[in-house]
Amino acid sequence: MELAKLTFDERGLIPVVVQQHDTLEVLMVAWMDAEALDRTIESGRAWYWSRSRQVYWMKGETSGHIQEVKEIRYDCDADTLLLFVDQVGVACHTGERTCFFRSLYPVADRDVPATTHDGDNIPLS
Amino acid sequence: MELAKLTFDERGLIPVVVQQHDTLEVLMVAWMDAEALDRTIESGRAWYWSRSRQVYWMKGETSGHIQEVKEIRYDCDADTLLLFVDQVGVACHTGERTCFFRSLYPVADRDVPATTHDGDNIPLS
Repeated sequence: MELAKLTFDERGLIPVVVQQHDTLEVLMVAWMDAEALDRTIESGRAWYWSRSRQVYWMKGETSGHIQEVKEIRYDCDADTLLLFVDQVGVACHTGERTCFFRSLYPVADRDVPATTHDGDNIPLS
Repeated sequence: MELAKLTFDERGLIPVVVQQHDTLEVLMVAWMDAEALDRTIESGRAWYWSRSRQVYWMKGETSGHIQEVKEIRYDCDADTLLLFVDQVGVACHTGERTCFFRSLYPVADRDVPATTHDGDNIPLS
């Protein structure tokens, strides 16, 4: 596989934004190295590199909450990936649909889908 | 400002996914440190830290393509931010609306909005 145009960081990693392909909800951000990207393309399911555990992991390998990959895009600097996926079940290990379920700012007057845990907002002062 | 719950990396940075608040298109990914986040919250416009130039930059400060910040969310690990913005003009320095305008995989049979530069696809073999 010739992916030489992609820029991996000094750890050999590239950040990956994961978006539900139909609702366009951003589900999570994780990291891949070249091998995880290879596994993803070959299997059609999202594989990542765990920085904390230093292992490859297939999303949903234990929970069943797999991500079927619809498309992979890369940005103008070729140093970030955007995955369009079909998320089975939920993306977040907390049981939330998306990992981005808490709002930092503002806590009101927003015209985007409401977060589910306003009580967890980080105090701004 | 008490943002102690957020986790910045060893460089003092946190990745930021930027999403158009109404269309939910992912526009770009950039980086903030605590000071950039502070400037963003205080001004209501997106400020980032440039890793290559080692300076703060307000998105659109020269192009006029500013980002009005509608909401800031953070993920379950508190180590990634998601900005909902209203992007004036285009997000990408190439003139594209989004920085993610090129598709890596697959190059056809997708049910998401078409990319504009299929000719730039990275060869997979």
